[in-house]
Amino acid sequence: MTTIPDHLQPGFEAVIGSYCFEPDEILRFANKFDTQLFHTDPAAAKQSLFGGLCASGWHTASVWMKLHRAFASKRAAELEKQGIQPPEYGPSPGFNDLSWLKPVYAGDTITYTNRNKSIRQSNSRPGWWVMEVVHEGLNQDAVMVISFTSFVLVFLPEG
Amino acid sequence: MTTIPDHLQPGFEAVIGSYCFEPDEILRFANKFDTQLFHTDPAAAKQSLFGGLCASGWHTASVWMKLHRAFASKRAAELEKQGIQPPEYGPSPGFNDLSWLKPVYAGDTITYTNRNKSIRQSNSRPGWWVMEVVHEGLNQDAVMVISFTSFVLVFLPEG
Repeated sequence: MTTIPDHLQPGFEAVIGSYCFEPDEILRFANKFDTQLFHTDPAAAKQSLFGGLCASGWHTASVWMKLHRAFASKRAAELEKQGIQPPEYGPSPGFNDLSWLKPVYAGDTITYTNRNKSIRQSNSRPGWWVMEVVHEGLNQDAVMVISFTSFVLVFLPEG
Repeated sequence: MTTIPDHLQPGFEAVIGSYCFEPDEILRFANKFDTQLFHTDPAAAKQSLFGGLCASGWHTASVWMKLHRAFASKRAAELEKQGIQPPEYGPSPGFNDLSWLKPVYAGDTITYTNRNKSIRQSNSRPGWWVMEVVHEGLNQDAVMVISFTSFVLVFLPEG
């Protein structure tokens, strides 16, 4: 019998953090990875269908990873403080249904949330479980700008 | 009646480019966005389940975007040279089924391919079409390391 801790149960939700997309950071990422004019040129962006400089979707997704890492480290430290062994996570096999729903404009602050959707035993790796987690990012006006679903491998000892 | 150009037809495939993941670039991206030790610390990475420093999955995906942009610009210039108006693309609404299949190690060269899967008229925007495109990245040993499916909006004039 394996005990699934509360924070790995379906329905558990956590705000992992907020991030303000400064124009300089938007330009730096876009010049490297996504040179569409509405990501790299504030004047051209004004004339584009977006009407203003906005972040590459890959930037919005990478910032989720950044905040997720910081949040996971903090949570692990808190568990250790309580004398609880933090769960061991495996590398992510991938994700699903990534939607860029609305532009993330320069100066927007996005707040990211993780919500557990399901957990099941791995078919191939004894002791490992596969979690499905929904990730959402909302801007300062509570408008959702990004959502995706990821699969997470987590090791849960028996007993 | 709308004519769909050859390179937008299902089945059309193009190698968009290759990229060598240098250790410095892996560390730079990971220190910013994905501070798992197998992405940020070559010594710790050796002791990890990957056995060596490897790129963040978000880095592997962002490099696809980089090469895709360069390829699309080059193709548009070639079409213009032939007197053909390049198609107008809309912003990506998102993608599906992103899988990180194998690690991308420092020094690996990944070759990325786009392959059209389907094309249909947009339900909501007259003149716009929705393409489904499969993207794959293979390393120098022809092992697939990343795959995902994206949706692309493209405007095709009637006639």
